Amino acid sequence: MANLGFIGLGRMGRHMARNLIKAGHTVTLFNRSQAVVDELVAEGGKRASSPAEVARNARVLFTCLTTPDVVESILRQALEGAQPGDIFVDHSTIGYADAQRIAAMCAEKGVQFIDAPVSGGPWGAEAGTLTIMCGGDKAAYEAVLPYLQIEGKKLYHLGPVGAGTVAKLCNNLLVGIHAAALAEAFVLGTKAGVDPKVLYEIISGATGNSAQIERNIPKFIFPGNFEAAFSVDHLHKDVALAVSLGKDQNVRMLLGALTQQLLEEARAAGYGQLDEAALIRPLEELTGVKVRA
Amino acid sequence: MANLGFIGLGRMGRHMARNLIKAGHTVTLFNRSQAVVDELVAEGGKRASSPAEVARNARVLFTCLTTPDVVESILRQALEGAQPGDIFVDHSTIGYADAQRIAAMCAEKGVQFIDAPVSGGPWGAEAGTLTIMCGGDKAAYEAVLPYLQIEGKKLYHLGPVGAGTVAKLCNNLLVGIHAAALAEAFVLGTKAGVDPKVLYEIISGATGNSAQIERNIPKFIFPGNFEAAFSVDHLHKDVALAVSLGKDQNVRMLLGALTQQLLEEARAAGYGQLDEAALIRPLEELTGVKVRA
Amino acid sequence: MANLGFIGLGRMGRHMARNLIKAGHTVTLFNRSQAVVDELVAEGGKRASSPAEVARNARVLFTCLTTPDVVESILRQALEGAQPGDIFVDHSTIGYADAQRIAAMCAEKGVQFIDAPVSGGPWGAEAGTLTIMCGGDKAAYEAVLPYLQIEGKKLYHLGPVGAGTVAKLCNNLLVGIHAAALAEAFVLGTKAGVDPKVLYEIISGATGNSAQIERNIPKFIFPGNFEAAFSVDHLHKDVALAVSLGKDQNVRMLLGALTQQLLEEARAAGYGQLDEAALIRPLEELTGVKVRA
Amino acid sequence: MANLGFIGLGRMGRHMARNLIKAGHTVTLFNRSQAVVDELVAEGGKRASSPAEVARNARVLFTCLTTPDVVESILRQALEGAQPGDIFVDHSTIGYADAQRIAAMCAEKGVQFIDAPVSGGPWGAEAGTLTIMCGGDKAAYEAVLPYLQIEGKKLYHLGPVGAGTVAKLCNNLLVGIHAAALAEAFVLGTKAGVDPKVLYEIISGATGNSAQIERNIPKFIFPGNFEAAFSVDHLHKDVALAVSLGKDQNVRMLLGALTQQLLEEARAAGYGQLDEAALIRPLEELTGVKVRA
Ligand SMILES: NC(=O)C1=CN([C@@H]2O[C@H](COP(=O)(O)OP(=O)(O)OC[C@H]3O[C@@H](n4cnc5c(N)ncnc54)[C@H](OP(=O)(O)O)[C@@H]3O)[C@@H](O)[C@H]2O)C=CC1
Ligand SMILES: NC(=O)C1=CN([C@@H]2O[C@H](COP(=O)(O)OP(=O)(O)OC[C@H]3O[C@@H](n4cnc5c(N)ncnc54)[C@H](OP(=O)(O)O)[C@@H]3O)[C@@H](O)[C@H]2O)C=CC1
Ligand SMILES: NC(=O)C1=CN([C@@H]2O[C@H](COP(=O)(O)OP(=O)(O)OC[C@H]3O[C@@H](n4cnc5c(N)ncnc54)[C@H](OP(=O)(O)O)[C@@H]3O)[C@@H](O)[C@H]2O)C=CC1
Repeated sequence: MANLGFIGLGRMGRHMARNLIKAGHTVTLFNRSQAVVDELVAEGGKRASSPAEVARNARVLFTCLTTPDVVESILRQALEGAQPGDIFVDHSTIGYADAQRIAAMCAEKGVQFIDAPVSGGPWGAEAGTLTIMCGGDKAAYEAVLPYLQIEGKKLYHLGPVGAGTVAKLCNNLLVGIHAAALAEAFVLGTKAGVDPKVLYEIISGATGNSAQIERNIPKFIFPGNFEAAFSVDHLHKDVALAVSLGKDQNVRMLLGALTQQLLEEARAAGYGQLDEAALIRPLEELTGVKVRA
Repeated sequence: MANLGFIGLGRMGRHMARNLIKAGHTVTLFNRSQAVVDELVAEGGKRASSPAEVARNARVLFTCLTTPDVVESILRQALEGAQPGDIFVDHSTIGYADAQRIAAMCAEKGVQFIDAPVSGGPWGAEAGTLTIMCGGDKAAYEAVLPYLQIEGKKLYHLGPVGAGTVAKLCNNLLVGIHAAALAEAFVLGTKAGVDPKVLYEIISGATGNSAQIERNIPKFIFPGNFEAAFSVDHLHKDVALAVSLGKDQNVRMLLGALTQQLLEEARAAGYGQLDEAALIRPLEELTGVKVRA
Repeated sequence: MANLGFIGLGRMGRHMARNLIKAGHTVTLFNRSQAVVDELVAEGGKRASSPAEVARNARVLFTCLTTPDVVESILRQALEGAQPGDIFVDHSTIGYADAQRIAAMCAEKGVQFIDAPVSGGPWGAEAGTLTIMCGGDKAAYEAVLPYLQIEGKKLYHLGPVGAGTVAKLCNNLLVGIHAAALAEAFVLGTKAGVDPKVLYEIISGATGNSAQIERNIPKFIFPGNFEAAFSVDHLHKDVALAVSLGKDQNVRMLLGALTQQLLEEARAAGYGQLDEAALIRPLEELTGVKVRA
Repeated sequence: MANLGFIGLGRMGRHMARNLIKAGHTVTLFNRSQAVVDELVAEGGKRASSPAEVARNARVLFTCLTTPDVVESILRQALEGAQPGDIFVDHSTIGYADAQRIAAMCAEKGVQFIDAPVSGGPWGAEAGTLTIMCGGDKAAYEAVLPYLQIEGKKLYHLGPVGAGTVAKLCNNLLVGIHAAALAEAFVLGTKAGVDPKVLYEIISGATGNSAQIERNIPKFIFPGNFEAAFSVDHLHKDVALAVSLGKDQNVRMLLGALTQQLLEEARAAGYGQLDEAALIRPLEELTGVKVRA
């Protein structure tokens, strides 16, 4: 059994860490707030009081944090406790340039960095069925593969550092656009008099369907329950990172750029902490329509 | 067995007419170009030389044409041969106001009009598995239901005239946005160095998936074969009709409006007659990337 | 002195009619609401009780109404009183295809139609300094030129019927985009802490200036007075007509299409009857910023 | 007479430096490429071989460079030669956060930083009529005011560091949107058959006018001469900085975001080094229209 570390025990990370513990590994944990650490320590995890302490106890360190700045700052601290040969695996969604800058920072201490963003939501994290998209050294990837297989089901090594991030940003760009698109279609149909439940039944079986429609309509929008599984703020960060990757790659991204602004709108309306399905709410309020069932 | 009529034997209509013939009905046919009529007559259909002649021979008349103008003009001609009590079922995708105007025109002659747009593509038309979304008098709908059950699998009566059209336009609005969105995501990922085949494998199993991704990427974009199953021109028409419905209903449709212009771009680039998957081509050309596999 | 007619005595038309009366012409008037007719009759105009009655008394008929539908319906009624050789001059902003359809309807009765939309606002109408953009028969244009010279200062004959409309729609497309653009710039600057008065002083003297900035900021936005000189509803109509002309001409209009939706947003927010400067209000409300001075 | 420094002798900087020399000041110069330094040395400037050398010889240092990264790197080098009490005045257009970060870096060495972006183009720089928008310490601003008065005519102190940048970004956001807007209007009008020269005459005197129309149409677009006075790349940088400021300030910027992508399109089409008026060229090419006169 291996000595692993996990930093960032939020909506996603807590499940991934628990699955690693359950599989019998020694997992040293750090999190800003302590309640979730208490819980996981009760299940066999080990508490550390700093990122550096985690790194001292772990040969493979996993992180699942928020923005690129947070990831960089935590990993800088972790590097103080790391040894040459250690591997850092980051499950947060960060930018392409961020991944490369952080990898360079790690390389200075002889640590290998793998960007390993995930898709599948808290449900997938809990079930261990995540899609994990990795970029980085192939041998390092293979070294951590046994642990990734505990966290997820569909594992990909896509190329050098940043490649996992690219795939993840492409996916979440689509998540953002699709979430904004379904808002337009369902508000329009409902306002024009069609029963939204039947509309959902039709579209979810037809050419206009998307994974977002299947996720957002029945679980969040119909019941009017926008408690965050994946927040507007996170999706805003990801779409902004995708549009920014477009800028670096000189790819025109009209729908992406517009969707970023619609996420900005939802944030300005006070919905940043709600689930991304709440992207429909500004339009509902503007038009006086509620897509509920 | 019933006396039916079918006008408009294009990519969709020919399959629907054939299925009605195969089911044993007497189907009188009219089409602008004759080759397809020859074919269907060989299989048991009856040729007519005008829309009015079709109407004289049919108690239920199906149409599957292109733009609202064409539908209106053909049905005006058909009305000359119709009898009070006949039912006209239109499978074309037209506008909400168009459906209502045409229904009023039919009502003057005692003919009932059902807007019955479909989803499922030529494959679905051939297999008889279409989704058919109907608006109009409930009794009239029930009268034609046996024939609709030959043409499709998922049949909906959604309300008064125009209700089927609303559902269809909501679906195709999503088709348009999703087709434009996948262009951005796959050009971005490919340009940033990820293998588009793996990207497709990942996204089609993840939260960014859409029916359009599953349709357009493997069947059209990867092989670079843009022969139309559903043309850019038709999708442009539909998205424009949806945006126009938004105007009537006072619903702000930012992504819809932008997508209409991207379809305009594809038309201006000369791709109007290609399959709607070709929406990716202007962006491929701008960025020098080809998403092929 | 000539026998003229004027129908549509709204914010613009009343001033134009008054100027024609003041110049000594016999002007027969019709308007839906009567208060303004009373006023102009007191100044020398003649009241008519229908469009046809105006047409019977006038060899040149001016209209300044709202939407294409209203113009078409009023002119259809007027044609009942018209004589071959009469000229109809329409100052409303309508669509390109509308102008051509109405001209054809007039031609059937031997009446010539000139589309003659204007720019300059109620101020320009009052001062007789309007820009007037005409399309139609050159000789007919020259026949009415003496009256146009009373209504405006900058007079253009741009080509056959519809040509005046094209120029006007291009201008108002810019009006719409510029009005939406200044909202973004001034809300951004104000939110980021710059005094909007100084910001206005700078930008109005710099490369970012526009006629809309000079109109909307000091007259409407700073005082927070959005009483309509030119309403959101009218601008929405015009931008929609321009985008629709783009569709006919197969010109991609991304900013135009987006601006149409922002006008839709302002209408949905209840500001349709306010001045178009109110396009800034949804963004002010979203961001909690007021650009006032 | 004062000891001044100037780094960045491009399209703008060369004129500003020359005006300072002409006014009798001792101006030490540095530029990456030397031809322009030769010229200005011949007119009385002093050549330095590094940014640090400029700083050693100057109590007030002006810069007019390109991107935030370049400004930061050059000023970091300059600080090595600076003395406490020196003032750095940056005329480049950089971001709000950039200005603050650079000011903090300067403050560590006792140097005061003033962000002082300009508007007016090479013409204004040459004529000494620039608008200069400053942020920073009020006393420092007053200390450099005599030199700013040589470079420009309209001088503003808008608040603490970053305030000048905010005003400039608001202005250039409008420049970008207006440049993209005129492309749509003039391509549309020309395609619909109106003579672009007359269209320009009308619009430039009407409510749709903008400073961009007066600049881009007669000087660049009509003659088809897109040699850069202000490049697409620079405008892209500025609009991206404005949209990014919107992100920091949580202001939805739909037209801004779209315009950034249109600039991306022009860059991808190979027009980054052309004048920003070339923003019309992708649309001209798409539609087959040339707005020339
Ligand atoms: N293709 C698809 O996947 C789907 C299409 N639809 C909708 O179904 C309708 C038909 O689509 P599809 O079959 O693909 O279109 P096609 O272009 O393949 O067929 C169009 C039919 O309309 C006829 N037609 C066109 N213009 C005229 C005219 N001026 N006068 C007389 N007949 C005319 C054509 O005649 P001719 O054979 O002589 O050209 C042909 O029979 C459209 O409204 C479309 O939006 C809906 C769902 C899916
Ligand atoms: N305002 C401006 O700054 C400018 C306006 N325009 C264009 O000029 C036209 C008129 O604008 P404006 O004067 O501002 O508009 P107003 O709304 O002030 O006036 C509209 C006129 O149309 C009449 N009208 C409206 N609906 C009907 C109807 N159903 N039947 C009969 N009459 C009707 C109104 O009658 P009633 O008095 O009874 O309501 C009124 O006389 C529009 O096309 C506008 O786009 C062009 C340039 C500038
Ligand atoms: N042009 C305009 O109309 C306006 C421009 N501005 C802003 O002013 C600034 C300058 O614009 P402009 O003069 O047009 O730009 P130019 O591209 O003409 O000049 C850029 C200057 O920066 C120098 N430079 C660029 N990269 C580097 C580098 N890596 N290391 C050292 N020096 C470098 C160039 O040196 P070299 O000569 O060796 O290339 C040149 O001196 C920009 O921030 C722009 O946004 C503001 C208002 C108007």
